Amino acid sequence: MASVQYLGIDVGGTNVKMGVIDAKSGKITNFYSHDTDSWRESGHFMDQFADAIAVELYANKEVKKVGIGLPGMINRERTTPLEITAIPELNGVPMVDILTKRFPDVEFFLENDANAAALGEFYFVEDMNDENYIFITLGTGVGGAAIISKKVFVGGDGNAMEPGHIPSRNGKVLERNIGKKELLELAVARRASYKGQTTLPADGSISTTGLVAAAAEGDALALAIWGEVGDMLGEGLVSLVRILDIKQILIGGGLSASFDYIMPAVTKQLDYWLTPYYKDGLKVTRATLGNDAGLLGAASLCF
Amino acid sequence: MASVQYLGIDVGGTNVKMGVIDAKSGKITNFYSHDTDSWRESGHFMDQFADAIAVELYANKEVKKVGIGLPGMINRERTTPLEITAIPELNGVPMVDILTKRFPDVEFFLENDANAAALGEFYFVEDMNDENYIFITLGTGVGGAAIISKKVFVGGDGNAMEPGHIPSRNGKVLERNIGKKELLELAVARRASYKGQTTLPADGSISTTGLVAAAAEGDALALAIWGEVGDMLGEGLVSLVRILDIKQILIGGGLSASFDYIMPAVTKQLDYWLTPYYKDGLKVTRATLGNDAGLLGAASLCF
Repeated sequence: MASVQYLGIDVGGTNVKMGVIDAKSGKITNFYSHDTDSWRESGHFMDQFADAIAVELYANKEVKKVGIGLPGMINRERTTPLEITAIPELNGVPMVDILTKRFPDVEFFLENDANAAALGEFYFVEDMNDENYIFITLGTGVGGAAIISKKVFVGGDGNAMEPGHIPSRNGKVLERNIGKKELLELAVARRASYKGQTTLPADGSISTTGLVAAAAEGDALALAIWGEVGDMLGEGLVSLVRILDIKQILIGGGLSASFDYIMPAVTKQLDYWLTPYYKDGLKVTRATLGNDAGLLGAASLCF
Repeated sequence: MASVQYLGIDVGGTNVKMGVIDAKSGKITNFYSHDTDSWRESGHFMDQFADAIAVELYANKEVKKVGIGLPGMINRERTTPLEITAIPELNGVPMVDILTKRFPDVEFFLENDANAAALGEFYFVEDMNDENYIFITLGTGVGGAAIISKKVFVGGDGNAMEPGHIPSRNGKVLERNIGKKELLELAVARRASYKGQTTLPADGSISTTGLVAAAAEGDALALAIWGEVGDMLGEGLVSLVRILDIKQILIGGGLSASFDYIMPAVTKQLDYWLTPYYKDGLKVTRATLGNDAGLLGAASLCF
């Protein structure tokens, strides 16, 4: 007998992705992706979104639970998006009510996408046994979530964990220091100081992939940039650990490819600021799910 | 008929205070205080502590619940202190087990003192209706707690909310910037720049009471110091709000006497760093219980 199947939906600013996920194996089938903009431009985002769900549910009649990850803030009851910057059409739309009315025998679960991705690590990573962990995503911005006792920590009003927006160095929030764009600008700005010690292009065309590859080959500039990123990330993590008393940290997101090169600085900062109570058992690891984190995270809302 | 009576115990580094608290009115009777050091020096802290409880319980036979606030870290099950810097004799002592064995018909509740004081604001302040709030204590250090859905937020491993130890300006944690000793040092250091604009003594004998009084009279140096304190506190609060999504903040502790003089800078920082989602409904007020916060907080653990 086949195990339970869930529909996972990852609503992103670029694409809306859907897939049927096997609850046991995490295998994804019936994958479908649609670009977000054309639904937005149609003026009927919610209708087109629901139509796409209808197609998936029709083709997969055993699916009775649907998890949806959204890139923004949601009300505490997890029924209505409040502030989805990339898709403002959804703000205030009672999505769960609308979908439940249209598909009365199906349950819908709404969650912030970083929260969902964090939860996915618990349900779909085999050797993941931590019931409490901080999950950080490094990319264009710095996102995050906390899982406490296997549940998403929603805080007071439902939208806890915006680590990218805590005050950091240079009078900026953390993600305006170590976001993708900012760290590339930093690499350009620092290049002059590393003449002869770097093979990175001088024409401003440095990419984050290039920065990771160069660090792997010992490039001094690349290592310095990831070191600065690690220092600032590490300081931010100290605040999270002190406020949440969680000692397991997972680093995910596209820029977590830099994990090996930011970790020396991250470790140095954690070691500098924290006391033995926290350092005993402190563990920073790279998140596992990678590209499938969005869909698997959404599906994990159905557990 | 009299309402329910609880025994509240505030274990501090200087004194251990006890009192019978009326659950309805918060009225404190049978107040007893003993200096902490002499119990420590006896080598039998726990025995002497339990003896003092015995005396209170014998005199107040209607008391069946005892709340105890401790200045440090406690295990997640709230039975055993882990790290009480001021009274290390208690580290690892299974207090709740010991007390329950000695007083089998009485229930004991252990909690961190800042957490207890925060909860006290909910149960003993008449017009306090917020179910979520951040509670900050300003004094020698900067303590804190978060109440979420009327419950103490314990985080992952039981000891959440150490806002005094998040990284702040000057490469220091927040409480090493704005603790009592540090802000007095700051006042001494800044004094030369305020010649003729301050009536504060030049001999290094400035007190925090003096700094508050001087600010009340418009003293430029005093206002500048509280402004700096407010700036750094405000930045710390931004991190808390972003991580916890709580928009009600209570400021307590001895140095909250400076509330009116730190608030302009606190408000400026919150306004600078936060977005409309947070600013809508954001409220910073002074905690109400004052000197009785410790005892009433401990009693509130019995609710």
